[in-house]
Amino acid sequence: METYQLTLNNILKYVKEIYSDVEVVYRPPHGNDIRSTYGREYERVLKLADGLNKLGVGPGDRVATLDWNTIWHFELYWAVPGMGAVLHPLNVRLAPEDLVYIINHAGDKVLIYHRDFAPLVEKLKPHLKTVQLYIQIADGQGPATKDVEIEDVIKQGEPKPLPEISEDKVATIGYTSGTTGRPKGAYFTHRALTLHTLVSALAFAGFRGFARPECVEEICTFLQLVPMFHVHGWGTPWTFALLGWRQVYPGRFDAGHTARLIAEENVKSLAGVPTMLYMILTHPDFPKYVEKVRKIRPIFTVGGAALPKELAKKAEEAGFIPRVGYGMTETAPILTLGFFKPTEKIPKDVEEYYHLLTATGLPIPLVDLMVADENLRPVPRDGKTMGEIVVRAPWVTPEYLGDPEKTREAWRGGWFHTGDVAIWQPDGRVRIVDRAKDVIKSGGEWISSLQLEDLILTHPAVAQAAVIGVPHEMWGERPVAVVILKPGASAKEEDIIKHLEKFVEAGKIPKWWLPDKVIFVQQLPLTGTGKIDKKVLREQFKDVLKK
Amino acid sequence: METYQLTLNNILKYVKEIYSDVEVVYRPPHGNDIRSTYGREYERVLKLADGLNKLGVGPGDRVATLDWNTIWHFELYWAVPGMGAVLHPLNVRLAPEDLVYIINHAGDKVLIYHRDFAPLVEKLKPHLKTVQLYIQIADGQGPATKDVEIEDVIKQGEPKPLPEISEDKVATIGYTSGTTGRPKGAYFTHRALTLHTLVSALAFAGFRGFARPECVEEICTFLQLVPMFHVHGWGTPWTFALLGWRQVYPGRFDAGHTARLIAEENVKSLAGVPTMLYMILTHPDFPKYVEKVRKIRPIFTVGGAALPKELAKKAEEAGFIPRVGYGMTETAPILTLGFFKPTEKIPKDVEEYYHLLTATGLPIPLVDLMVADENLRPVPRDGKTMGEIVVRAPWVTPEYLGDPEKTREAWRGGWFHTGDVAIWQPDGRVRIVDRAKDVIKSGGEWISSLQLEDLILTHPAVAQAAVIGVPHEMWGERPVAVVILKPGASAKEEDIIKHLEKFVEAGKIPKWWLPDKVIFVQQLPLTGTGKIDKKVLREQFKDVLKK
Repeated sequence: METYQLTLNNILKYVKEIYSDVEVVYRPPHGNDIRSTYGREYERVLKLADGLNKLGVGPGDRVATLDWNTIWHFELYWAVPGMGAVLHPLNVRLAPEDLVYIINHAGDKVLIYHRDFAPLVEKLKPHLKTVQLYIQIADGQGPATKDVEIEDVIKQGEPKPLPEISEDKVATIGYTSGTTGRPKGAYFTHRALTLHTLVSALAFAGFRGFARPECVEEICTFLQLVPMFHVHGWGTPWTFALLGWRQVYPGRFDAGHTARLIAEENVKSLAGVPTMLYMILTHPDFPKYVEKVRKIRPIFTVGGAALPKELAKKAEEAGFIPRVGYGMTETAPILTLGFFKPTEKIPKDVEEYYHLLTATGLPIPLVDLMVADENLRPVPRDGKTMGEIVVRAPWVTPEYLGDPEKTREAWRGGWFHTGDVAIWQPDGRVRIVDRAKDVIKSGGEWISSLQLEDLILTHPAVAQAAVIGVPHEMWGERPVAVVILKPGASAKEEDIIKHLEKFVEAGKIPKWWLPDKVIFVQQLPLTGTGKIDKKVLREQFKDVLKK
Repeated sequence: METYQLTLNNILKYVKEIYSDVEVVYRPPHGNDIRSTYGREYERVLKLADGLNKLGVGPGDRVATLDWNTIWHFELYWAVPGMGAVLHPLNVRLAPEDLVYIINHAGDKVLIYHRDFAPLVEKLKPHLKTVQLYIQIADGQGPATKDVEIEDVIKQGEPKPLPEISEDKVATIGYTSGTTGRPKGAYFTHRALTLHTLVSALAFAGFRGFARPECVEEICTFLQLVPMFHVHGWGTPWTFALLGWRQVYPGRFDAGHTARLIAEENVKSLAGVPTMLYMILTHPDFPKYVEKVRKIRPIFTVGGAALPKELAKKAEEAGFIPRVGYGMTETAPILTLGFFKPTEKIPKDVEEYYHLLTATGLPIPLVDLMVADENLRPVPRDGKTMGEIVVRAPWVTPEYLGDPEKTREAWRGGWFHTGDVAIWQPDGRVRIVDRAKDVIKSGGEWISSLQLEDLILTHPAVAQAAVIGVPHEMWGERPVAVVILKPGASAKEEDIIKHLEKFVEAGKIPKWWLPDKVIFVQQLPLTGTGKIDKKVLREQFKDVLKK
């Protein structure tokens, strides 16, 4: 007999079989709500796939999307891979030239866009070399262009069963944001995404800290807040379908609208980057909903960046249960979740509790994870020694599209190199302390630029700080701090160093971590996504330690 | 990059990483308890694998076991597949000649046996053609023979990491009990068992009716009651390890001892055949524990045979939560579980409730299941039309060992034929009504022999009943009832038919189901496993409807 294939289609059939009557809700800020069910969505997905097929979309064709978290995006998540084509969600925040590069590089044949992006798409069109078909999502607001509308595609389709496809077929592609160099394309097979779905479902159903006991007996609601153009919206559209949870799609992100949805739709679980959580908590409308939120106690899984302790505390005070996840574009994305082992005591001490809570978490099943030295040996689990997080998992991209060199580099020694530098705690948790390219290598030892920056920022005169490694004759590299002072404040190099020496005395950092130099500037260079561009800084200050 | 391999070794590493301090307990009826942990078991599994290796056991070698549910059996479940060899648990209840046939047919190289089976093994030895190494499990009671003892094998091993193996490697084999013809060998790859483990873990962690909400926050205990020589003990040794539950291994089955273990070890979930449940409930010691059982409310998953309503009621009264599972040797085994959909209302009416409860259940994820007619088309989900249950799932055996003809027959049309005849309810549940070989085909329609037998047994004079299909000139087959009366009771053919006519009037069965003949006998022929041998009956009475 042929081997049973691990495909999203088999997950979808199961969802329709068992959860047919469970609701899927689209409730965007502009209104025009849609209340559907998994049963109805199944039918629409089949029709959408057939409709696309009738327009000439076939197996292996790449179908790009420029869309918010709409119900059509949810349908495309199933229909495009389901018909054997390749879903390619585009980050709507990218610069037009990056979008052109990515679409051409991926060879996208179809571009499906939300009406909000109609002007952008008109600008892109002359530069797109491979796109043959444009489809718009009018979102109940009337068409914005003359391109075919997605509801008409669905209308023309018949609800034919999806084909049986091989689990090794590529289901999706996605590009890294590319802070260094050009964006790189990762791809994921049906097998990878099916296993990611099964294992994250297991974690959200049963793991301590993520499972909601009451959701065994009642139908609970998940809010898809993470933009679906970011690594499969973290996979949750598929995961919570398999769990039979009610799902709410909120359209484009709007902090006040999100607060309302949590309260009115009784949202028990959601996920997002720390900035989203911060924007919700500080939104002027939030106090209207805080009482209801405190009653619901939603689990808010934070990923994409570290969860600051202060934000975690603020979230708990507001009624949320903050949790942490870790992953990246290349890993589909989930690698770790901040769950608790059954044998762990959750600390009573507030500081200890938040320290545990904000660690990067424990690997989920089928993720082999190691904090490794440069020879790919595990570093000791002592909470001090730094190493790079390297992983193996069924859902890590096997290569970068058309880039064998970058692929070899990322996969050296048979482990995928995340580029994240971390320490390994005795409890098995990892705690990220830097990006590999930013960590400072001094005399064979590593210094975390992030940790130094955090400490420099505690000086009352400092507004922003970046610590970089600068070439040094004897040590290879030494840390140099680049600092912006607060308006009207004043501080000298020795003030900053003295301030840091207090942390040396308290045993927080070793003495040899102290920067060799502090440079004061008016402005720091930023990347396209708004992060400090340390590459530029390293180039600018590469000679400051030369004798 | 090479594809990440789905192996039990990766599950084991995860269990050790996250659940190192969770207990694994061996508590047999004879005493000599062992209290271990997953961490310690990991170390022992590695040493056992290395120790076997040092004795010449290598990849692909078949390692048979004759053992109760001991902690060594648990260790062998991981160590043998983990080292790339093949685990072959033998049913200790089989007749010696069947064991000889199976061991020779499988080509077992090693036989590991519990001291209780030492006399049996001495009898088998002269007839075993392929076994080169015998290992005994002395079970803390001193050696029974001169064969090497398993603790010495473990002592001589070093805790070397298990090798990386391909997911397509065969991990286990098992033989069907073979009521018709010779036992048939099924086999399972690492991939099959890893997926079975992941999906059953998901069901036991999150599915309504099987998940225990309190077990998210506390460490709960699973009792491995199902003999581990029956289809992987239903897979639960692996499943509950992945879930991080505490596990208790009870040695050989003893109903009174089981009741004590449930109460004293605070068992929250266990599984077994209906007879086991019956024996526990009716054991003279049970009343001593009933109060504690009522407090714990253990989930008892019944499989291997239908759960009679009366037994389900009795179990609930005694404090258990009875649940149903369905599968077979060829399917690793789980195909369906009697969970509830999130949108289902659990009936208040007692009869309706038990009717729902005792259905064969709903498929678990990745199980494609269909009740099909003879042309492999799904029968209507009307709760009436009979068909055969056919399935596809990642954990169904791809073939019968060395038997291409039986393989072709079982897998005709690309679906595995279970040989179980069922009706399909509108809610998606299946309800088994007969074995395919026993169902009576009358004029192109099917009559369930089991249902007729159940109704005949409600006649006060009837002790036992078997209904068989007998060749008939016009109808192909017609039902004939073969009946044993209770001692001292009397009834004639027309009494039995009149009794059945009441069920016709009540709409329970159609009129054309009424048997053409009732034959009274003193005795019914039995198979080796104690079931009524209908094959013999059909031969004996094949001419009774001839004109």
